Amino acid sequence: MTVHIALDAMGSDLGSDELVDGAVQAVQEENANLEVTILGDRTQVESALARHSHPANINFVPTSEVITMAESPFVAVRKKRDSSIVVAFDLLKQGKVDAVVSAGNSGAVMAAAMRYLGRLKGIARPGIASVYPTLKGPVVMMDVGANVDCRPQHLYQFGVMASVFASVTFGIAEPRIGLLSIGEEGGKGNSLVRKTHQLLKQSSLNFIGNVEGRDTFQGDVDVIVCDGFVGNVCLKLSEGLAEAILTMLKEEISKTFKARMGYLLARHAFADFRKRVDYAEYGGAPLLGLNGTAVICHGRSSSLAIKNGIFVAGALIDNKANEKIRVLLNDVCQGLEDVNLSVTGTE
Amino acid sequence: MTVHIALDAMGSDLGSDELVDGAVQAVQEENANLEVTILGDRTQVESALARHSHPANINFVPTSEVITMAESPFVAVRKKRDSSIVVAFDLLKQGKVDAVVSAGNSGAVMAAAMRYLGRLKGIARPGIASVYPTLKGPVVMMDVGANVDCRPQHLYQFGVMASVFASVTFGIAEPRIGLLSIGEEGGKGNSLVRKTHQLLKQSSLNFIGNVEGRDTFQGDVDVIVCDGFVGNVCLKLSEGLAEAILTMLKEEISKTFKARMGYLLARHAFADFRKRVDYAEYGGAPLLGLNGTAVICHGRSSSLAIKNGIFVAGALIDNKANEKIRVLLNDVCQGLEDVNLSVTGTE
Repeated sequence: MTVHIALDAMGSDLGSDELVDGAVQAVQEENANLEVTILGDRTQVESALARHSHPANINFVPTSEVITMAESPFVAVRKKRDSSIVVAFDLLKQGKVDAVVSAGNSGAVMAAAMRYLGRLKGIARPGIASVYPTLKGPVVMMDVGANVDCRPQHLYQFGVMASVFASVTFGIAEPRIGLLSIGEEGGKGNSLVRKTHQLLKQSSLNFIGNVEGRDTFQGDVDVIVCDGFVGNVCLKLSEGLAEAILTMLKEEISKTFKARMGYLLARHAFADFRKRVDYAEYGGAPLLGLNGTAVICHGRSSSLAIKNGIFVAGALIDNKANEKIRVLLNDVCQGLEDVNLSVTGTE
Repeated sequence: MTVHIALDAMGSDLGSDELVDGAVQAVQEENANLEVTILGDRTQVESALARHSHPANINFVPTSEVITMAESPFVAVRKKRDSSIVVAFDLLKQGKVDAVVSAGNSGAVMAAAMRYLGRLKGIARPGIASVYPTLKGPVVMMDVGANVDCRPQHLYQFGVMASVFASVTFGIAEPRIGLLSIGEEGGKGNSLVRKTHQLLKQSSLNFIGNVEGRDTFQGDVDVIVCDGFVGNVCLKLSEGLAEAILTMLKEEISKTFKARMGYLLARHAFADFRKRVDYAEYGGAPLLGLNGTAVICHGRSSSLAIKNGIFVAGALIDNKANEKIRVLLNDVCQGLEDVNLSVTGTE
């Protein structure tokens, strides 16, 4: 079955060329079985497309408006009906495409998704899952920014959704779920985390307990659950620290001739390292918990990141991720009703 | 004036030798003007001291009990009256020493400090400040673990205390204070952060606005304010990521002969980099907001880290940090009474 993706071509900081190139690379990949409808400004997209020789499985729908990074998501989505983001979700709602991929204003993508798709039945709060590289393989962190004030139930459901995502994307049968906290014991952490620990412990999920910030990059866990404030801080802190470390290393290396020669010899290792930790390899961050499929790509996405973002969306559709979330939510919630109620009640 | 430090010699993961060596190095530093009283097990400390030839300004008080990392801080502090941590704070309460330095169970250090010293007048919640290296110089983050569930007032006071610490330790006249959030605008963040933003904005502190995780290592801010849960996650995430990056780089470098040769040439640069980001250079994390002075060192502190931790305590005493916190708290709180009340009232 061909999966049909709507790609917002107006979002990237790097311009429409990278986005269009990513789409073309995606459809041309062997066994891809993809069709991509690109949405965006006619001049920009047509000039980007003109650089390729009439690729098959690429459509174009011109849109006249753009939602910028600075705009208020909810206002922009309500007013800019002919923006690439809004038209993309409208196509998805009408069943004309299977998923939306955007590197634009992530708040606006979330707002449009909520307006046009709504939540998956039983999900209290959709959220954003992000993939990190670790020493042993990828780890999924959820939520990384959609929900800044959460209840235990919300974190619990992030665990369910991220578990399905890790399973369909990385082929892990029973993803190990860790709860981000500041001590391994169940009694450690803030009140949100302590209550969430109880919920997860009583569920049938593969919950391995609390994990600390230090454990994030060890690869001993497949899913890390946290609220969107903490997750977003972690995401940006990690990006900032990785950049700072490489900058400092280069500063030290550039101080002596000998070290500069050493760097020249070792530079392929540096490049391989960069590739290993490059978010572009993982493509995009899916919005999970929606009545539909959407993937947010980084604002500075390369064509490789866009291509992989499209593949992430395709994998979610191919593997019926939303159907699996519905089933898992029902399964693990059996017998949890009382706990849910009491936890909600004490807040 | 000689500053007199009580050093808990039982806390470190590396054993008493490193702690005793750090104390000896501290008192022997030129113009140090320090006296250190070491507390701990007689056999261990005497054997560690025997490795030095009767250093001046080092005293020893044997203690018979040890509070381990696994113990409940409050219970341990109440029951183990002859533990090195408890005896150290008892000496401080009696005025026999000026400050306590420990690399032991940080919860127990906090509990003993609260029991024997109590809070500084006007401070709602003492907290732990930690120093990070950045591209441009050190930054102080507070709180990094003492208070997991906070109110806006608490974060506001962390700003006051960390500002004084940055000022006396790094000689910054008016430290730039940033509030850790997930967007630069004042309206971004969770409800705790949004309310804290208003408090800081209305104060006379040098508040530059919200900062994101990415900004932490840029060095464009001197103080980062956050709650103890977020701060502790950030601290451990940073440690874990820095280790993971160096491990991954080494793995890539060891893959080819050429890259290994390159590393040999550049290895001094790697060593200099490690020194630049080594927490040992900053010594320890002070507990601020107490009616007294205490510094917590990392559990894996080298003698260098202990020496620097002793210097941090000395600088806090020499510069009358607690007096300055009292004054600044009064200064910046003028006219804030209403805001404080309304913020507390809405929670």
